[in-house]
Amino acid sequence: MASALRVLGIDPGLTRCGVGVVDVRADRSASLVHVGVVRSATDLPIGERLAVIAAGLRGVLAEHSPDVVAVERVFAQQNRNTVMGTAQASGVALLLAAEHGLPAATHTPSEVKAAITGYGSADKLQVQTMVARVLRLDALPQPADAADALAIALCHAWRRCGPSAGSGGGALTPAQRAWADAERAAARR
Amino acid sequence: MASALRVLGIDPGLTRCGVGVVDVRADRSASLVHVGVVRSATDLPIGERLAVIAAGLRGVLAEHSPDVVAVERVFAQQNRNTVMGTAQASGVALLLAAEHGLPAATHTPSEVKAAITGYGSADKLQVQTMVARVLRLDALPQPADAADALAIALCHAWRRCGPSAGSGGGALTPAQRAWADAERAAARR
Repeated sequence: MASALRVLGIDPGLTRCGVGVVDVRADRSASLVHVGVVRSATDLPIGERLAVIAAGLRGVLAEHSPDVVAVERVFAQQNRNTVMGTAQASGVALLLAAEHGLPAATHTPSEVKAAITGYGSADKLQVQTMVARVLRLDALPQPADAADALAIALCHAWRRCGPSAGSGGGALTPAQRAWADAERAAARR
Repeated sequence: MASALRVLGIDPGLTRCGVGVVDVRADRSASLVHVGVVRSATDLPIGERLAVIAAGLRGVLAEHSPDVVAVERVFAQQNRNTVMGTAQASGVALLLAAEHGLPAATHTPSEVKAAITGYGSADKLQVQTMVARVLRLDALPQPADAADALAIALCHAWRRCGPSAGSGGGALTPAQRAWADAERAAARR
């Protein structure tokens, strides 16, 4: 566990902000440290909602001391009713990472799906199933925002490990194997 | 000046975040306290850019102790290349207001234009001209982001004053007169 990278993954949102912390080792194996959802009441003013989210994220940062933060990237094309609140929450998450001196990265939903399942248009259940398998959980992580946060964290760690990091080992999980296969296929193109 | 409301207006942005502080009295007359732009370098990581913006906004909050913060509302329909950064900066601005215990409001661009010039589709030059007149400035506020921040601050104060606040006085500025006229016209509908 000495060389594990501790990643805080954040699925930004105002009503539910998913947070997941994982330790990922150089052989790509991973273990669950924390998973949860920070919620803010919909009837609060927007500034106070963001302050509630910030307080929750600061609590996770203080308790679990991640090495790096990974946040799902928000697109203008997403649901217009919620996208601005989601973007504002992502801004708060990225700000807090910087203020804690931590590197922060964003990953697109399709990058996350590709890293976890091997292909970029996987559905939510496939992603959740793979996250549960990789982390050896008895049940699918709930709610979905929490599972997404774990997926973002795993995605970030595995992308950092580089394409060859896990390819020699015999103890790859199915997700890791699918990922390595997809990378080899991409490299042949 | 004793009863003036001090408003910090923010035109959110990552590359240039306009900030304007005005004192507005019950008769709607207003004076300039501070105007400026907080910039962040485009080659910094997004989290660090938001931290630079946050540091600049904290400096303005500490130096000028506003009573209230008004932020221009961001829409998903705006320029897709910059809208997410703008939304993230607005989230940081709203968070800081809440963390300073200040009420924060958002106003749409057309609300701001209507409050300042009397109609919601005024162009930027018209808004800047009115802002300069209301604040008795010798020149148009520069750059445009700074002028917009002043307009947002004035808009917020005047909307808070309510429709009748300035209608009895003889010392209305042209903008205040146009605003009062527009409100009377709207009330007749």
